[in-house]
Amino acid sequence: MVELVILRHGESQANRDGIFTGWSDVSLTEKGIAQAHEAGRLIASTGLQFEHCHTSMLKRAIATAHIVLDEINQLYIPETKSWRLNERHYGALRGKKKAAVKAEVGEQQFKRWRRSYKVVPPLLTVPDYDARYAALGVTEPVGESLQMAYDRLMPYWQDQIAPRLLSGHNQLVVAHGSTLRALIKYIERIDDVAIDQLEVPNGEPIVYQFDTKLHVVDKQVLNQ
Amino acid sequence: MVELVILRHGESQANRDGIFTGWSDVSLTEKGIAQAHEAGRLIASTGLQFEHCHTSMLKRAIATAHIVLDEINQLYIPETKSWRLNERHYGALRGKKKAAVKAEVGEQQFKRWRRSYKVVPPLLTVPDYDARYAALGVTEPVGESLQMAYDRLMPYWQDQIAPRLLSGHNQLVVAHGSTLRALIKYIERIDDVAIDQLEVPNGEPIVYQFDTKLHVVDKQVLNQ
Repeated sequence: MVELVILRHGESQANRDGIFTGWSDVSLTEKGIAQAHEAGRLIASTGLQFEHCHTSMLKRAIATAHIVLDEINQLYIPETKSWRLNERHYGALRGKKKAAVKAEVGEQQFKRWRRSYKVVPPLLTVPDYDARYAALGVTEPVGESLQMAYDRLMPYWQDQIAPRLLSGHNQLVVAHGSTLRALIKYIERIDDVAIDQLEVPNGEPIVYQFDTKLHVVDKQVLNQ
Repeated sequence: MVELVILRHGESQANRDGIFTGWSDVSLTEKGIAQAHEAGRLIASTGLQFEHCHTSMLKRAIATAHIVLDEINQLYIPETKSWRLNERHYGALRGKKKAAVKAEVGEQQFKRWRRSYKVVPPLLTVPDYDARYAALGVTEPVGESLQMAYDRLMPYWQDQIAPRLLSGHNQLVVAHGSTLRALIKYIERIDDVAIDQLEVPNGEPIVYQFDTKLHVVDKQVLNQ
């Protein structure tokens, strides 16, 4: 038996303000910081010892991971920050108020952009440039469907997370709403339609227990 | 030109209480947290972009590193936590009040244990066991002279820090009083006697500028 804990970052400034965010690098709010501490205490209550922590290159996830590692007294474990765990890139929606977009395009299109698996948001016409990705030779996306985020996440799962689980080491993943939806889709074999209904709340750890073939034996959502 | 910033963690509970610490894993005090933020702001004022952050497996250094990375808005850079950057192991002195030890053994012996390069403290008779090191196959020391700490630090410098500097990438090291004394001894070619006089205060970043052969071109201590 081996365990994987996945956690969406605490509330960010963009969550609070109802703004599409994606790869924009926004901070946690005070509420988000408190949620991260509470998530840490919930994970501490499981008594799990982790061998590795995986997070994105965005500070709302990294800061959440650091708070959790401090709460569980495991700051010393190795931590990898990968762009493959970054939030889905929201393309030209990024920085826009969700309510304004909904009013403009209607409830149905809004939902399709937010929740459906294959629908790509309006793309950026001018690609972003951020030195942190350029230094890695990573070309930033100009917009991603959930499927596109899934496809760039999978190599990280296959290369960095799954082998460690298969070696019997518990893993901690602190990431984002969409990348965790993608990961849950894979782990629970949810189909392309049913995934529409899945939401991952901020700061609620999900604990998966796997057998030696990484089949799910148990799933628990930790909340107060 | 390439730059290395080295920083001793902020005040720890053991610093505050005047206790020999070494590999014991103690937290920052409120003052230590404030020192870490101030160090971060001082480093931010240099405008340096780092490619990698190196710290120890002890939380007073890791927490300081996280605060600094947040202050300089570079939480996304890779971070390595190595036992080779851990504080010198104080052997049987560990956990003892410095004032009591000084009263017991006298000023001269106290100074030799604290500051001289080759003197080994009284050793632990029963080795420590901490799963974090055992998991790495690392046998914990039962006590170290500064020279012994230097010798186990050097492979980390040679394998992880120096090659990155030689590739032109600025590096950030957040560590401990003794391991930074050892590193400064190496960088500045200080002899075994003169090193006695060197102290590294909590929370004061030191910025080295190197040429392409890693000779020191400039050194600045940042403080308020």
